Amino acid sequence: MRKGSVGIVAPEKIPFETPLVLENGQTLPRFDLMIETYGTLNAEKSNAVLICHALSGHHHVAGYHSAQEKHPGWWDNMVGPGKPIDTDRFFVVGLNNLGGCHGSTGPLTQNPETGKDYGADFPVVTVKDWVKSQTMLADHLGIRKWAAVVGGSLGGMQALQWTIDYPDRVAHALVIASAPKLSAQNIAFNDVARQAILTDPDFSDGHYAQESKIPTRGLRIARMMGHITYLAEDGLGEKFGRDLHSDGYQYGYGVEFEIESYLRYQGDKFAGRFDANTYLLMTKALDYFDPAAEYGHNLQKALKDVQAKFFVASFSTDWRFSPERSKELVRALIAARKPVQYIEVQSDHGHDAFLMEDEAYIRAVAAYMNNVYKDAQA
Amino acid sequence: MRKGSVGIVAPEKIPFETPLVLENGQTLPRFDLMIETYGTLNAEKSNAVLICHALSGHHHVAGYHSAQEKHPGWWDNMVGPGKPIDTDRFFVVGLNNLGGCHGSTGPLTQNPETGKDYGADFPVVTVKDWVKSQTMLADHLGIRKWAAVVGGSLGGMQALQWTIDYPDRVAHALVIASAPKLSAQNIAFNDVARQAILTDPDFSDGHYAQESKIPTRGLRIARMMGHITYLAEDGLGEKFGRDLHSDGYQYGYGVEFEIESYLRYQGDKFAGRFDANTYLLMTKALDYFDPAAEYGHNLQKALKDVQAKFFVASFSTDWRFSPERSKELVRALIAARKPVQYIEVQSDHGHDAFLMEDEAYIRAVAAYMNNVYKDAQA
Repeated sequence: MRKGSVGIVAPEKIPFETPLVLENGQTLPRFDLMIETYGTLNAEKSNAVLICHALSGHHHVAGYHSAQEKHPGWWDNMVGPGKPIDTDRFFVVGLNNLGGCHGSTGPLTQNPETGKDYGADFPVVTVKDWVKSQTMLADHLGIRKWAAVVGGSLGGMQALQWTIDYPDRVAHALVIASAPKLSAQNIAFNDVARQAILTDPDFSDGHYAQESKIPTRGLRIARMMGHITYLAEDGLGEKFGRDLHSDGYQYGYGVEFEIESYLRYQGDKFAGRFDANTYLLMTKALDYFDPAAEYGHNLQKALKDVQAKFFVASFSTDWRFSPERSKELVRALIAARKPVQYIEVQSDHGHDAFLMEDEAYIRAVAAYMNNVYKDAQA
Repeated sequence: MRKGSVGIVAPEKIPFETPLVLENGQTLPRFDLMIETYGTLNAEKSNAVLICHALSGHHHVAGYHSAQEKHPGWWDNMVGPGKPIDTDRFFVVGLNNLGGCHGSTGPLTQNPETGKDYGADFPVVTVKDWVKSQTMLADHLGIRKWAAVVGGSLGGMQALQWTIDYPDRVAHALVIASAPKLSAQNIAFNDVARQAILTDPDFSDGHYAQESKIPTRGLRIARMMGHITYLAEDGLGEKFGRDLHSDGYQYGYGVEFEIESYLRYQGDKFAGRFDANTYLLMTKALDYFDPAAEYGHNLQKALKDVQAKFFVASFSTDWRFSPERSKELVRALIAARKPVQYIEVQSDHGHDAFLMEDEAYIRAVAAYMNNVYKDAQA
């Protein structure tokens, strides 16, 4: 399936000078969104696809920023010429969400009211706020209606929120490895991650940057724990089992099993590249997401005015957002008489499967996007 | 089912002045085991039952240390007059394992070679070491053969190890909510817990006591995460769901959902009462446990000379030690032609179910212990 690459791409920072009123009552006087686009917007502006990112994602969805860059964008297997989200057909937009740490306005950028970085003063934003900011981006790009809004995990939540809040602006929503709201267990894992960061002495109440500190310990623990929950138990067993890192037991607290080496490496890598305040607010956006709440906690009612058609996908071994959670959405869509295609992909890769090269999954998205393209031409 | 209490009980510290050679090659020159006993040892010394504890357990299994004590011992619903492990019939022994923090020799006790507390210098002990020390305790009590060795989780591992290492000294083994070895996912969760403690600045390389510090941050995170994994997702959902702690969203990092309040409380309570070095070494004992390893990684072979009869129990929603893990043991016992009774209890309480008052579970243990009693009389 893997075909061409979008090649070398450049991000762009789009300034928005209009104030944005947030769900928590605060107002952002202005903001920037860092974006990347691939493909060409057609004359009718009917072929635009928005890619919404998950917890640690960003605008760099596909291609390379330079010939030296080792790894392509985070969904390069899905987005490119001839790929399921085909850049020969679609104008694809990736963005870094508000509160992110990859160039959009967030904890790492300057608060115009103080002249200092926002840090912990950056407001807690929600999926609804993100979608609102994304409508301003759509307006800026001249896109009245997205051919599709696509996302996995927290990205899928944004796609769903789009169809509810702006029903006439989304033709298709692809909601992958997601859920209509978090469970108590999901929230619990998020809270432990947050507590690890908040209680790291180097967190300094979120103003660590001003003190030239980084709460790497907390971020590392948060990521290590998160990583376990993104993987399937069976997949972990097949990949690592009880394999030892060295010969024999060490009877100490260094790396003993290969799984420990792997997890600590993932934790260290993440702690070195991700902002702690952003991690905190992304997990809160996950916790708060519950579009049915506004509609008497009735998801079917929340979907009543939706005009989009849906593609919903889940992965058999995903226990963070299990197939059952996707089926809740599918059942509500069916009850609300909305068109929906659902696929449960057999996979050993747990929640992370949505980022991976699974033949059945990639083909299902490709087939669905073919229909999206036909709709966009009509 | 809940019948009488063993009433007010007093622990006893048993000194062992014989050196104990550990699996890691180190020798403990001497050690103490803190124990509690209930009921009366019969003249034939055939009615003794050993209770092995799990990660955070100890010798105080049943009854109260004083009339003021609020909560009884940790398995009071299982042990007492007329209860499944009936102290009118059995002489029941509870102990705090080596390396524990409840009075037995461990990180909190004095190293006779230095005159200072062991702290981080206490050696990493294994399930095999514990069982070896428990044979010395049996000898001290004049017990040649246990009527039963009983344990849940890490306690069940000790019961299993007993039957393999000392086949003629155990008549029955009750292995509850346990596994013949940890999976990669189990080890991964343990390692994140350890990393949370080891990287807490107040851990001070394990010599925090000498510096009058306690690594409460790390212990708290370890326990919060552990606690999530001990509970069932559905059980958490039913108990907490998305219930808010106050009215409406707070848009901050204080307690927002009830599940957060509960977890933080559990974490704080644990951090205030448990020793960090003990937590570390208990999790290592879990990781290392793999009795089949000595027998070419063939569990059936490891069980070849076992003389004990087995009772194995698992709980439907326990995902830390799932029913599948108990079945591995059951299948190996059957293949090795050893008598085994197996029950999978339907429960909403996840791994913690083994400590709880479930009618079907309690009755199954009671029925099995009735047979144990008959065997002990024969």
